[in-house]
Amino acid sequence: MKTAPPSVEALIDLMARLPGLGPRSARRAVLHLIRKRALQLQPLADAMADVAATARECLNCGNIATSDLCPICENEERADGTICVVEDVADLWAMERTGGFKGRYHVLGGTLSALDAVGPEDLRLPQLADRVTSEEVREVILALNATVDGQTTAHYIAEMLEGRVSVTSLAQGVPIGGELDYLDDGTISAALRARKAL
Amino acid sequence: MKTAPPSVEALIDLMARLPGLGPRSARRAVLHLIRKRALQLQPLADAMADVAATARECLNCGNIATSDLCPICENEERADGTICVVEDVADLWAMERTGGFKGRYHVLGGTLSALDAVGPEDLRLPQLADRVTSEEVREVILALNATVDGQTTAHYIAEMLEGRVSVTSLAQGVPIGGELDYLDDGTISAALRARKAL
Repeated sequence: MKTAPPSVEALIDLMARLPGLGPRSARRAVLHLIRKRALQLQPLADAMADVAATARECLNCGNIATSDLCPICENEERADGTICVVEDVADLWAMERTGGFKGRYHVLGGTLSALDAVGPEDLRLPQLADRVTSEEVREVILALNATVDGQTTAHYIAEMLEGRVSVTSLAQGVPIGGELDYLDDGTISAALRARKAL
Repeated sequence: MKTAPPSVEALIDLMARLPGLGPRSARRAVLHLIRKRALQLQPLADAMADVAATARECLNCGNIATSDLCPICENEERADGTICVVEDVADLWAMERTGGFKGRYHVLGGTLSALDAVGPEDLRLPQLADRVTSEEVREVILALNATVDGQTTAHYIAEMLEGRVSVTSLAQGVPIGGELDYLDDGTISAALRARKAL
C-alpha cells in the first residue's frame, strides 16, 4: 500500500527505529516535520549530518566529543582529583544534570557480565587504572547501577584500585519523596544498614 | 552546563520539538543515534534532507507528494467516482491503513472554527467543489472527526454540494470491541438512533 511517496515512507521507517518512537508516532513526527519543513526538517537534517560527521568518543573518558577530548576533559577546572565512574554516557548526563559533581568522569561502556561474556578487557577498565596515576586522582566515585552486574563491576574496580586510591560508591537508601510502604524490601534493608545519626 | 558538545546539544534541542519526544527521550534517541552513527544517523540525515527538498502538497488532494500529484491521485484505478474528505493527512493515512477505501481523497487542512477564525476560504473547500465536477464524482464521503468543529464542517460541505452529488458520512456507533458500560451517553444514543435490522 503506497500511501505516502517512497522517500517519505523511507524516512518514517528510519524514524520508527528510534527508541521511544513506534511506527505510529514516527508517522506523526514525520507529518509534523513535513508541515514545518523549512523551519524544522531542514535544520534537523543539517544537525544530524553535522553530528554524524563529527561525533566520536572522548579519548580520555569515553564521553561524546567532537574533538579528541570532550568539553569536561578539556576543562582544567574539573581536574579536581576525583573521577566518577559510570556505565554509559546516558548515566554521565544524568549525573551532570544534578550539577552536584565538579570532577571528571570515566565511561566504562557497560558492565562486567558473565551471561553476556563481557570481561574486563571489553570495558574501559585499563584506561581507568592509567588515569588514576596520570591525573593524580585522590578518589574514584563509583556511580554504577544498583543491579547485580553493576555491583559486580563495582567490586572488581574496588579490588583493581585497592591501595592506590580511595574508592567510594553512591549511597543506597530511600529515594527522596519515597514512601516506605511502596519500597521493595532490599532498599529498606539497605537503608536500615546504612542508617546515620541525625 | 555544557555536558555534550554544542552540535550534539543543538541536535537534542531540535529532536525534543518532535511530537511524542520530550527533552529526556530526545537525549536518549540522540545517544542511540550517535552510537549507531554510520548505520542510522547518516541515513536518517540523508532521508530528512531528501524529504525536505522534495516533499510538498499534492496539487489535487492536499496529500503529501514528491511531484505535482501524490501516488493516489496519480493512480488512475483510484478514480472510481468517490472522494473521501478528511481533515488532515494523518486522517488520510489512517483511512488508507484500513485498506477499505479504493477511491481518492481530499484533505481539507483543518475544520471550520468560529473560535479560531477558520472560514471556508482557509480550507480546501473551493477545490473540493471543483473536483466534484472535473472528476465526475458520484459520492463524497465525509470522514471528519466526530467533534463539534468536524460536524459543523460536514454540514457546511453537505449544503455546499447539495443537489450536485451524493454526500455520505462515516457511521457513528459502538466501536468494535467496545463495551456499553464504558461508552459515553452520546455514543450510545447515536448508536440507538442509527440501529439497523439484523
